[in-house]
Formats: sequence, C-alpha cells, structure tokens
Amino acid sequence: MSISEKVRLGMQNGSLIRKMFEEGIALKKLHGPDKVFDLTIGNPMLEPPEAFSRELKKLVENPRPGMHRYMENAGYTDTREAIAAKLTSETGIKFSHSGIVMTCGAAGAINLALKALLNPGEEVISFAPFFFEYEVYVDNHGGMCKILPSTESFVPDLNALEAAINPKTKAIIINSPNNPTGIVYSDNILKQIAEVVNHKSTSLNRTVYVISDDVYSKLYYDGGKCPRMLNYYPHTIVVTSYSKELSLPGERIGYAAVHPDCDDRKDVVAAMIYANRILGFVNAPALMQNLVRNLQNASVSVGEYKRKRDLLYDNLTGMGYSMVKPEGAFYMFPRTPIKDDLTFASELKEMLVLTVPGSAFKAPGYIRLSYCLDDRTIEGSLPAFRKAIEKYRP
Amino acid sequence: MSISEKVRLGMQNGSLIRKMFEEGIALKKLHGPDKVFDLTIGNPMLEPPEAFSRELKKLVENPRPGMHRYMENAGYTDTREAIAAKLTSETGIKFSHSGIVMTCGAAGAINLALKALLNPGEEVISFAPFFFEYEVYVDNHGGMCKILPSTESFVPDLNALEAAINPKTKAIIINSPNNPTGIVYSDNILKQIAEVVNHKSTSLNRTVYVISDDVYSKLYYDGGKCPRMLNYYPHTIVVTSYSKELSLPGERIGYAAVHPDCDDRKDVVAAMIYANRILGFVNAPALMQNLVRNLQNASVSVGEYKRKRDLLYDNLTGMGYSMVKPEGAFYMFPRTPIKDDLTFASELKEMLVLTVPGSAFKAPGYIRLSYCLDDRTIEGSLPAFRKAIEKYRP
Repeated sequence: MSISEKVRLGMQNGSLIRKMFEEGIALKKLHGPDKVFDLTIGNPMLEPPEAFSRELKKLVENPRPGMHRYMENAGYTDTREAIAAKLTSETGIKFSHSGIVMTCGAAGAINLALKALLNPGEEVISFAPFFFEYEVYVDNHGGMCKILPSTESFVPDLNALEAAINPKTKAIIINSPNNPTGIVYSDNILKQIAEVVNHKSTSLNRTVYVISDDVYSKLYYDGGKCPRMLNYYPHTIVVTSYSKELSLPGERIGYAAVHPDCDDRKDVVAAMIYANRILGFVNAPALMQNLVRNLQNASVSVGEYKRKRDLLYDNLTGMGYSMVKPEGAFYMFPRTPIKDDLTFASELKEMLVLTVPGSAFKAPGYIRLSYCLDDRTIEGSLPAFRKAIEKYRP
Repeated sequence: MSISEKVRLGMQNGSLIRKMFEEGIALKKLHGPDKVFDLTIGNPMLEPPEAFSRELKKLVENPRPGMHRYMENAGYTDTREAIAAKLTSETGIKFSHSGIVMTCGAAGAINLALKALLNPGEEVISFAPFFFEYEVYVDNHGGMCKILPSTESFVPDLNALEAAINPKTKAIIINSPNNPTGIVYSDNILKQIAEVVNHKSTSLNRTVYVISDDVYSKLYYDGGKCPRMLNYYPHTIVVTSYSKELSLPGERIGYAAVHPDCDDRKDVVAAMIYANRILGFVNAPALMQNLVRNLQNASVSVGEYKRKRDLLYDNLTGMGYSMVKPEGAFYMFPRTPIKDDLTFASELKEMLVLTVPGSAFKAPGYIRLSYCLDDRTIEGSLPAFRKAIEKYRP
C-alpha cells in the first residue's frame, strides 16, 4: 500500500457524510437538482453582508503597499487589535492583540491549539453528539480523544466529565451554539462545566484547558448575548472563524484567542504562532485579514436564519417530530421515529430528501438537518418528512 | 509544563532565523530602518503583476454567486483544469484536473503529501543545504527525516542517495531552483536522481515518491525552460505556489500535482484531498483560487530579479567572495571567508547587515543572502561585505 494506513482507514470510516454527499450528487443528476432536497450541507447559502463587498471594493481600489506579502505568523497587528477590542466589548475581559492569532478558519485554529498543547498520549475530552472532525484533529497531533455522553437536553454530562478528567487530560473541547444539535449552553451550564474542570485541575495540580469552538456564537436566536465560556473559565482558548457570521467559509479566515488570565498564556500563544508556521498554514490569508479588520460589527442577517429555523422547526414538530429546540447555529437534530437512524435517513433519501444520520456524530437515533438553505429546499422537503413519520405512527 | 515538549524544543532550536529577525527589528529601532540592510528575508518586495490587480478588480466588480462558499476540498474544478492545461503545455505530460489539489501555499501542499504518504517511522530523504522546515513537516506526520550531503556544487550526492534508500524510505524531497543556494538542477542531474531512485525502488520492490518543491520554477535566469523532475520520474508529486511568481506569499495559494503515471495515483490524490480536510486547511482560499485560474501565464518580472542577482553576485565575487553562481530563486549562498559562519554573520551584523548563517540550513561555512529586495538595501550592504572579507584577506 502506497498511502498511509491511518489515512486509508480514516477515508473508509469517516465517509458517512461524504457518502450522503456523493449519493446526493448522483440523485441530482438522475432526477434533476430541483427535485432533490439536500439538508446535509453546512455551507451557508446567504451571501456575505453588504459591508463585506464594500470593504473589498475599497481595498481593491486603494491597495495597501505590500498587502499580499508575508506578515508575522500571528497575523497583522492592527487586525488582531480590532478583534481584541471587539472581544473586550463582548465579554468585558481585557484582551490585547498579543492574545490573538489569525488562522485559516476555526479548523485551522483548533489544529494550532492542539499542536501547541498535546504531548503524545495526552487526552482531549469532548461530548457526543459532536463535530466528528475533532477526533481526527486530536489524532493529528498525537493525542487521544475521549468522547463523553451528553444529557437528554444535549448538554455535557457533568458526572461523566468529573469522572473522566485524569492526569493525562490536557483539554476539553466544547462547541456552543452546537453542531449538530443547535443547542446553546446557558450561563449556568458553562459555570458548572468550569466548576468541575476547576475542581479537578486543582486536585490533580494540572491545568486543563478548555478549547471553546465559538464559531456559531453570532448565530444565536432567542436571547440577548450568547453565553461564552471565556466569562467562566480563564484557561480558555477560543477558536472561531468568520465562515458563518460573514458567510465566508471558502476563504478560510478565523482566529484563536487566549484568555488573558490563562495559565502560561505567553507560551501557549507562542506555541500556536509557531504551529501556524510548522503545520504549513504559515499565516491566515492576507487579503481576508485586511478585510475582517473593519468588519467586526458586520454580520449576515441573524433574523433570516431565525426565520428559517422557525419554518423548519414549526413544521417538523407539528408533524410529530420530537427535538430539543435549537437556539443557535443552523442545524436541528430531531429524534428519528425509529431507533435506526441509518434506515430512517435512507427512507428519506428514497423520497429525495438528504439528511445526515446521527450516527455520524456518535448519536444514533437522530438525524441532523441543516437549514442554512433557500426556503425552496426547506419547504420542498416537508412532504417527505410527513410521509416518513406517518409510516411509523402507531 | 503546559505546552507540548516537542513544540517547546522546536521553538528553541529552530530559532536561528527568528533570532536574526528579532535582532534585526531591535537594530532597526536603534539605528533607524534606513541604516540597517536586511538580507535575511525571502519576502518578495515586488508587487504582484498588473494582471493580478486587473483580475481582482474584474472579480470584485462581477462576483460569481456563492464564490465565498465551501467548494470541494480539492478546489474548484475549473481552476484545477487551468493548472492542468498549463502543466501539460510546460512539460508535455498530459495532466487533467483530477491530478491537481489546490492548497494553502507550497507549505500546505508538502504537508498534504506527507500526511497522505507517511506511516509511523517511514523515512523521507532530503539534501543539505535545505529549507529547514522540511524536517518539521516530516515530523508533523510521524516520519523521520534523513538529510544527505550535496556535492561541492550543491547537487545531490548520488552515492549517498543510493546508500540511503532502504525499505523504510517513502519519499525524497528535492527543491530546484533551490532555497538557500539558488542552484538549478540540470536535466542531467534530474535524470540521474531518477535513475538512482528507480533502480533502488525496483530492487526493494517499493515505490519511492519524489516530492518536488517547484516553488521557484518560474524564477529561472539563464536558460530557456526550467528543468522539471516531472519529466524524468513518474512517481513525482509537485508541490508549489503562486507566492513567488505572482508575489502573493501572504495569500497562501498553491497546489499539489500528481504525475498521471504515478503509482497509486488515485489513492495518493484522494489521500491528499482528505488531508486538506483533516489537517484543518479544508480548502485553499476561494477568492485566490478564482484569481489564479486566469493568471496561468502571468508572472512578476523575472528580468528584474535577474538584474538584482547580477548586481549582488558581480559585486560580491568582485570583492573575492566565492560561490556557485545561482541560476534561479532569489537567494545566493556564498562561502564565508572563515569557517565559522555564525561569527562571520555576527561581524556583518555589527556593520548593520543581516544575513542567515548556513548552519540554519545544515551547511556551516556559508551564509544565505536574499536579493528579493529593493536596490537600496542590496547596494547599501556592499561596503560591509567588502570590509568583512578584507579583514580575513591574507
């Protein structure tokens, strides 16, 4: 075998979403793209906000000399200052640019944090259902991923967390608003997580970092301010991107932010900057760094996503689907009427509606539905959802 | 210790260039930036060619719908088609888009290739002096780097290569035009390398891949067409970027191209696409992919670099510096008049001229000079070079 065995296995195993994606392409070819309703994709259909196009035009008409050159691996200082100021205004915590590292999206940022922190065999905890890439990211850098259960309402099981933290635990990854469930951890939940981690790290005399994947924190529908782990735990590394809030996922622009009171903050930041270089990212794309500097208050229409959430949620619950109401991100995660989510997703697929089985997120018995789609797709999928649940109505 | 031990050591050891860089900043603060002549940096001072700005303006004025969204991890098909066509016209080898993966620069591309290929403990060979990041890249993915010597004229020592290839050898990284020497491997040298690798892989019954870092292949000064490994060895993976030819290093846009006759070509490409996803790159920046599609024939002024090469080379050799004449890239690698390159670089630094000691590239007794700089810096450095060599004149 010429390629890496681990990569070969990874390609075989991690292919549930990929398989749906490919079958979707085949179905669209066969029946015409208008007849297939694809709810698998987390690829926002909203275009970036007007402010983005305006800034892009401005920059192109008045280029900065040398603006396509290398800069420091951490990114432009002024962009990092703008982000620090925004984070300070959002959280009340005094950030400076020295705690910010510009990255190739949130996926890049998580990889920097893990490369910076992990020694061989150290453990990283996350909670199912979870964004399955976390597991491979941890493996990239020699760590072991431990996936713990959540409660019925999709928040971390604190007893399991308490029991799982041990002398090899280096970090915990949380993600709120959550992919795949759309759940938002309340202030109270975040506080409880912080208490458990604090208590255990003290007794183990070891810093356990929280890597907080805040990529959906601007897409929050039912409250004022999205609760942030930063406000409850100092040893927090935020990893995030502009992919969702500015609809720029293809441009790979995001950042990592280390809490100013984080243990060994300087070392952690220096290690992430070094990781940016040695993992081959080198730096976040220069042009996008120049743009997001001035877009700290811009966002796609959150109201539009809320409307789509309501459209799909109200219809599905009206049909009898049971789910925890999503308060953020652009996914929902209903229970399947039968235990076997793979079969249920197949039945929907026969009616040309594509969904991701919960098993892909280590949560069988559910399906993930994305609603960052045009209304035609959402509305077009409804008859199939109705038919599918009626089959199993007692 | 909170951060990874390996990363901590890496930051300590890999800091020779970083140290020069930081001392340079301090010197510039102390004496004024005009008084310091910094020849350490491989950050092209030429702006991108006119065609780039033109394409950028065109795209911004006529945006493609959805052009900032995720695309396939491999990149846009039409961009990959344009690259395949260009490679075919350059090499006479029939490429199609299915052999091309868009990447975050050449550094991203090398990491994809290594992640795709390496099993734990497998070996990758390169030749000193070499771009020192290769060693960390190989380590990122669990491999072992074996650095072999070059001849006096900085081409691979073929006997050493023959002796070094063993059942654990997975790949060889070559880089022509070369950083740090500026040497270009002739057709004859490439042919000889291919013969050795072919012969050894046949006797070991094992494919040994050549990862050909062609990032400087457009910056070639004294011949017609830059010789390419692709033309001599089928199991070649080209890794490259637009950083040098379009002066876009901060934008992180490049690609990997797998020879159509490469063993297990489909698996290798699929593994690199998968690696793009799991290493956190996800895809090369979308906007830049849209631009380079139409810039396959654009380039910064190669004549301008040649003129700078001549300016520095003629002056230094006139003073008595001895070096192999660089035929490409934008570096030269003179012998230091004393064996101890660290001391010699220090003496130049005292005269406010910054260079990188050859030791950083595992080649003590040399210094690397970059000439992708403005003429003022090149000319301003000359008196110090003269003084420095005169001190050691017998």
